[in-house]
Amino acid sequence: MNRWEPNARGRLEAAALDLYVERGFAQTTVAEIAKQAGLTERTYFRHFADKREVLFGGSEELAQLIAATIADQPESAAPIDAAAAAVEAMGDRLQPRRERAVRRQGVIAANPELQERELTKLASMATTIADALRERGTPSPTAGLAAETAIGVFKVAFERWTTAGTSSDLAQLIRDSFTDLKALLAEVSP
Amino acid sequence: MNRWEPNARGRLEAAALDLYVERGFAQTTVAEIAKQAGLTERTYFRHFADKREVLFGGSEELAQLIAATIADQPESAAPIDAAAAAVEAMGDRLQPRRERAVRRQGVIAANPELQERELTKLASMATTIADALRERGTPSPTAGLAAETAIGVFKVAFERWTTAGTSSDLAQLIRDSFTDLKALLAEVSP
Repeated sequence: MNRWEPNARGRLEAAALDLYVERGFAQTTVAEIAKQAGLTERTYFRHFADKREVLFGGSEELAQLIAATIADQPESAAPIDAAAAAVEAMGDRLQPRRERAVRRQGVIAANPELQERELTKLASMATTIADALRERGTPSPTAGLAAETAIGVFKVAFERWTTAGTSSDLAQLIRDSFTDLKALLAEVSP
Repeated sequence: MNRWEPNARGRLEAAALDLYVERGFAQTTVAEIAKQAGLTERTYFRHFADKREVLFGGSEELAQLIAATIADQPESAAPIDAAAAAVEAMGDRLQPRRERAVRRQGVIAANPELQERELTKLASMATTIADALRERGTPSPTAGLAAETAIGVFKVAFERWTTAGTSSDLAQLIRDSFTDLKALLAEVSP
């Protein structure tokens, strides 16, 4: 058997999403995903630890993108601007995959196990942002606050993006949400 | 057997936390928790669905507190102030249990399964806040944004609280974090 399968990851991701949408997450087995992708279960487990992970394939690349984007910000950039740049870069990266994102959200919304995994991934992105800010010299509580805020904004913008029309732009929705939040916070009683 | 056990929930919670701290979460069984509390496994499962849930016993009360606090805010209160009032009320409720919270955080930090459950509970609190704000007439994306922000602030303040000295006040740390965030957001480039 040829151990190198062209684009095995991508084929498994596409097959899994198709089956999860058609039959439901709980009703689909790894064997069926592998079969639909024309691959073996063994190949599946070389790429993904479990049935959930196949829906979170890009997480490591996004974490690298976050870290690189924050490291690339000018020294003069405010922590919140650096954190915003990171989630906007995520927005740009996800934009071409909107259709997939919408289908994927439907599967995740229907499954508590998948929601847990999604929250874990988002929390780990917040940690990546906070670490990258600290690396730039942002003090610890500020870094955490900027990171949590950026991920909160991302979540809200992402939901708007997947439920809005096909022409909506995720990075723009992220910028809009930061502007909204700034206005909202200006109302905090002293 | 007397089916009514005085303060069975509290005894199970205390016994579980003691054992999780002493032996580790993975090494402790429900049978051992029940035994240490002087109760049966059956009683355990009447109160908690699984081994994790015993660490999240107060979640429903906190959700009720959130909803009631937001409903009680004057009509004139800004959405962010109503959301802040809800997480400050959580702070006041948790304050007398700081020692327990510190031990509990140690157990959760050491266990990915427990971290997932913790994130799920926090996400559900954000949903409770957003729903309560919408109930008051706050439009949907604003409600989501205020809720995510309040929970983000709560997370950062909670971490400060459990790592800071014993005299630290959670509600005050929450207020401080909102003030910090307001200053942080004021730096967002237009």
